[in-house]
Amino acid sequence: MKSIYPDGREASTMPLSPGVRAGDFIYVSGQVATNPDGTPFIGDIRGEITGAIDAVEAVLRAAGASLDNVVKVTAFLSNAALFATFNEIYATRFVSGFPARSTVVVAFGHPDVRVEIEAIGYVGS
Amino acid sequence: MKSIYPDGREASTMPLSPGVRAGDFIYVSGQVATNPDGTPFIGDIRGEITGAIDAVEAVLRAAGASLDNVVKVTAFLSNAALFATFNEIYATRFVSGFPARSTVVVAFGHPDVRVEIEAIGYVGS
Amino acid sequence: MKSIYPDGREASTMPLSPGVRAGDFIYVSGQVATNPDGTPFIGDIRGEITGAIDAVEAVLRAAGASLDNVVKVTAFLSNAALFATFNEIYATRFVSGFPARSTVVVAFGHPDVRVEIEAIGYVGS
Repeated sequence: MKSIYPDGREASTMPLSPGVRAGDFIYVSGQVATNPDGTPFIGDIRGEITGAIDAVEAVLRAAGASLDNVVKVTAFLSNAALFATFNEIYATRFVSGFPARSTVVVAFGHPDVRVEIEAIGYVGS
Repeated sequence: MKSIYPDGREASTMPLSPGVRAGDFIYVSGQVATNPDGTPFIGDIRGEITGAIDAVEAVLRAAGASLDNVVKVTAFLSNAALFATFNEIYATRFVSGFPARSTVVVAFGHPDVRVEIEAIGYVGS
Repeated sequence: MKSIYPDGREASTMPLSPGVRAGDFIYVSGQVATNPDGTPFIGDIRGEITGAIDAVEAVLRAAGASLDNVVKVTAFLSNAALFATFNEIYATRFVSGFPARSTVVVAFGHPDVRVEIEAIGYVGS
């Protein structure tokens, strides 16, 4: 197993790797928007969506990949009312074709988090 | 990334590919039953379950595969009371052995949708 | 498709394979803690968490693998209050580096189940 840590993320106290490379695939853990100190960013929803996508991107970059490599996304939202804004921002970030995606409403460990995104990247030919 | 679109699905306004091929794997986005015009089918639950499986099958067929290639399913239901009917219909559609599966209760972007199914197909040897 | 059944699990009435091997990957179905007769274990939460991880491990072992091969976990919990205990026990079971992971709060088919864990193992080089 090849764990992937973006710069400055090694200190996480959570028992997970931000990403793991397996063969030609990169599994990115569910990412939320974070503040510089690593705590969840709780603020405006557009910033939270952008931050969660940024966090996915940071894991992929640490593996030498990018959002262009993403083949599957699972997006977890806290409320159905967030779908329209989520789709609007999400659509601007995937410019090389859209990954497959499932998007469902769940709750999170932190009561104020509204967006968590996991992804699978593919770096094969 | 090789996006997969069943016939007539290219016009989706959602920022996702119905399916994506990556190496020997086909990632199928979460599928719901739809009417001929692409809107979610809201009606009897048996029809909704069947329609969601049909939609998964359509994506696989567009990639030259079938339900026989499915190795993993994640089924999202809106209510625990649906599990028995879901399992009954689901069991009739996978005739070459059952995929691995997780089935959980969540909510959806559309308030009346009750069943969404995502799948991973494998077309390697 | 190569279905994987731990010893004594062939008799499941659920339309799923506990595990499926596809290429170098092993997809493990969502596992809950069970009693010896296969019914869900409903009891203390520490036992339930341990039992769910044990069940994932049993599927992997039936495929000639172990928890060391897990590259991605999706953990489903019934309540955000369970995260701390879940992480504490979980961390003791993955000793060769942590898989990527997403952990979300959902509901289950059985009203008293609190923990379900699915996993992807990788057995390639």
